[in-house]
Amino acid sequence: MTKQKGITASKDNDFSEWYTQVIQKADLIEYTDVSGCYILKPRAYAIWEKLQEFFNKELKKRNIKNAYFPLLIPEHLLMKEKEHVKGFSPEVAWVTHSGDTKLAERLAVRPTSETIMYDAYAKWIRSHNDLPLKLNQWCNVVRWEFKNPVPFLRSREFLWQEGHTVFATKKEAEIEVYDILSVYKRIFEELYAVPVIEGTKSVKEKFAGADFTTSVETFLPSGKAIQGATSHHLGQNFSKAFDITFLDKDSNKQYAWQNSWGITTRSIGIMIMMHSDDKGLVLPPRVAPTQIVIVPIVFEDSKKNVLNKVKEIAKQLKSLNVEIDDRDNYSPGWKFNEWEMKGIPIRIEIGPKDVSKNQAVLVRRDTGEEKIVKISEIKTIAPKMLDDIQKNLFNKAKKFMDSNIVEVENFKDFVKAIKDKKMVKAQWCNNPVCEEKIKDKMGGAKSLNIPFVQLKISGKCVCCDEKAKVVALFAKSY
Amino acid sequence: MTKQKGITASKDNDFSEWYTQVIQKADLIEYTDVSGCYILKPRAYAIWEKLQEFFNKELKKRNIKNAYFPLLIPEHLLMKEKEHVKGFSPEVAWVTHSGDTKLAERLAVRPTSETIMYDAYAKWIRSHNDLPLKLNQWCNVVRWEFKNPVPFLRSREFLWQEGHTVFATKKEAEIEVYDILSVYKRIFEELYAVPVIEGTKSVKEKFAGADFTTSVETFLPSGKAIQGATSHHLGQNFSKAFDITFLDKDSNKQYAWQNSWGITTRSIGIMIMMHSDDKGLVLPPRVAPTQIVIVPIVFEDSKKNVLNKVKEIAKQLKSLNVEIDDRDNYSPGWKFNEWEMKGIPIRIEIGPKDVSKNQAVLVRRDTGEEKIVKISEIKTIAPKMLDDIQKNLFNKAKKFMDSNIVEVENFKDFVKAIKDKKMVKAQWCNNPVCEEKIKDKMGGAKSLNIPFVQLKISGKCVCCDEKAKVVALFAKSY
Repeated sequence: MTKQKGITASKDNDFSEWYTQVIQKADLIEYTDVSGCYILKPRAYAIWEKLQEFFNKELKKRNIKNAYFPLLIPEHLLMKEKEHVKGFSPEVAWVTHSGDTKLAERLAVRPTSETIMYDAYAKWIRSHNDLPLKLNQWCNVVRWEFKNPVPFLRSREFLWQEGHTVFATKKEAEIEVYDILSVYKRIFEELYAVPVIEGTKSVKEKFAGADFTTSVETFLPSGKAIQGATSHHLGQNFSKAFDITFLDKDSNKQYAWQNSWGITTRSIGIMIMMHSDDKGLVLPPRVAPTQIVIVPIVFEDSKKNVLNKVKEIAKQLKSLNVEIDDRDNYSPGWKFNEWEMKGIPIRIEIGPKDVSKNQAVLVRRDTGEEKIVKISEIKTIAPKMLDDIQKNLFNKAKKFMDSNIVEVENFKDFVKAIKDKKMVKAQWCNNPVCEEKIKDKMGGAKSLNIPFVQLKISGKCVCCDEKAKVVALFAKSY
Repeated sequence: MTKQKGITASKDNDFSEWYTQVIQKADLIEYTDVSGCYILKPRAYAIWEKLQEFFNKELKKRNIKNAYFPLLIPEHLLMKEKEHVKGFSPEVAWVTHSGDTKLAERLAVRPTSETIMYDAYAKWIRSHNDLPLKLNQWCNVVRWEFKNPVPFLRSREFLWQEGHTVFATKKEAEIEVYDILSVYKRIFEELYAVPVIEGTKSVKEKFAGADFTTSVETFLPSGKAIQGATSHHLGQNFSKAFDITFLDKDSNKQYAWQNSWGITTRSIGIMIMMHSDDKGLVLPPRVAPTQIVIVPIVFEDSKKNVLNKVKEIAKQLKSLNVEIDDRDNYSPGWKFNEWEMKGIPIRIEIGPKDVSKNQAVLVRRDTGEEKIVKISEIKTIAPKMLDDIQKNLFNKAKKFMDSNIVEVENFKDFVKAIKDKKMVKAQWCNNPVCEEKIKDKMGGAKSLNIPFVQLKISGKCVCCDEKAKVVALFAKSY
């Protein structure tokens, strides 16, 4: 029997090593020879598929269609919108050769698809009847960053969806920006059980080429904040660069109004960091590929009886995702540890004594709580327990996040709170110069967003002497 | 009102121009600035999603899991299996720079993922308990071919699934090769209504690095054959190159047995070419994103009545994919042409006279046949009509394919049949030298496969004087 290799690092004491162990030992990630490029193993990819299923339904309700645009973008297209190219060109992976032949023009591996999509949009849109145009694509993108890569959170290739929509009016576009952001909030809160704060990005932190960017942000047990997903209003910046125009009802030529929005595999990392513990992964039931694992405790003489009962239980639970672990070559204790490490929300243990009493033991991954349940009642108790786990994880995370938000009124307290690894809420002038100053003075702390739900704005900016214009969130972040 | 732009080329007289028009006018494809890279518009991508849904269910039944491996493969990995690299390196797109920085090692944009996957497999597989290992991934691949690109059929980037499985024994692996090929056959025949012939590829035509390759092949109205999908047995070629070994039950080290198999977006092009006609696209109901379109014929005084009836019909058909075209700015005739061009299987027309008689007109896209149906009966007649269309398309295509297969007994007849654009069945020595000769003498005609269902083998090879070993299919092909 292979010796069990549990998580040896502690989340509190060595977060980074702990995370590295969890994602590998829970069978989510494999490292490769290329720094920053990771293999998403089946247990990780299945989580992404749950997100896709949820989001595709929301897209359908909104009549947004899936499409697929080319991976490789000719250099001249990428260069068309000035702010955009400035934001992305330092991290573009360039294809220069095919076989032994040098290409006439370099091709960018897409870091995002605005430029290739909008080149086509300009051809497709002629009249107000062609609007709105609402497309989404699920794909891989490459951003060759030089910051320290972290699996899921910052990888050089990642998977995402990118929505790109075009409207006749600014108003329609703006309504959609917030609508999509609310879907992202639901993904985090309802699927991942991760609380997030919706808000608007500062001018410095907005998307390269956007008029404004909205985001959902959260705060992780590592003491760092993180951006969960973004929804951008592009205004007419790209429509002017790509000549996306339409004839309105009075036959006047107008530039279109555009949005883009995306959520990535980063979201999986956020969920892992938020909930998991020193035993390994903790998965919210709604995204767990396996929600319940049944582990029979067998001895030679009672094996058949126990295994029959296991089948009976599994049959009762067939509307849930259930796995049976009846492997002979591992002990029950070894299996318990393994399934805890892999984050299965409920473990059902059943041995010969349980069979004789017509019962089984249900063990919750989130609390470790054990509950003896009559077999006939498992089918009603297990789904409720899954709901409970989902809620408990969210509530715990919400309490954690809220308790780490500190409101400050002066710069000294600001500095202290950042040093204490808090998420700081402060009155702010909303000036990029001031934000630059904060970043310099506080070891990279930056504004996360300006929450939609605003406190009363009163008094001065926490950093300069100007009058405060907004209340913003600041923290060190990924 | 925009003037309707129908298909102006004929399938019989100018197949290539006809196809180019159909895929664009049916809103499936947009060309881009990069030769060989195309945009899959929503109506095309939706067909791919139907295939994914079908295939994912089959994967699940077989306990094959989805995963995701990196896009970029370091050069040294790609070089590990000699036959494989010979097959792919001339068409590899190379990433050489990130931003302004030259990379230390070139990275190949994956042309296929054997090498990056098997590098990981070597780490994961230790014992016979780790086998079988069965993974699949849905992704994009790039092969920078210099042959004339054709949307769907031969594009430089395409979407596919690639399955990569590892077994302890050759026998298990071989069983799977044929099992997966039978799923591909079902995709073509049951979803796409395209008949295919299963067989084994010749030594010359097999996958670079495989022991043997199986394929499904069909014959298109352009007079050319085409490969639909392939399932390969890799033997121990890659396990030896990548050191994928396991300890068997007696603790002996063994090299594993491997398969890989894939189906691509090419399959969509095959379906389009097979069924479509001079009015535009013809879609089999099982893959049609919209199965029925309802076109109300409205006059100002009766508009409300007619539109109410349309809603009533749509409600009855809610288990099907139904679209209502109640646009004011196009005439019914314009709409009829448009939906025919886009291949919607059934069109329902309803005007005030129909409403007064409580009826509607159902028009089949495949035959053009019109049927007057009582409104109360639409919900039973429409699904049956869709089934009929699906069957009719398959039967028509099967008859077409079968009638284009010619059995020949000597080289003279062989040459004539190829010249007549037929699919030729011939006794063959199965020698690569002989196949090379055929290719040279017959303007690129090559062996398609050696069908599993074999005729009696008797006499000499159709090309040389050796004894025939197999009956093979030959044709000019894409």
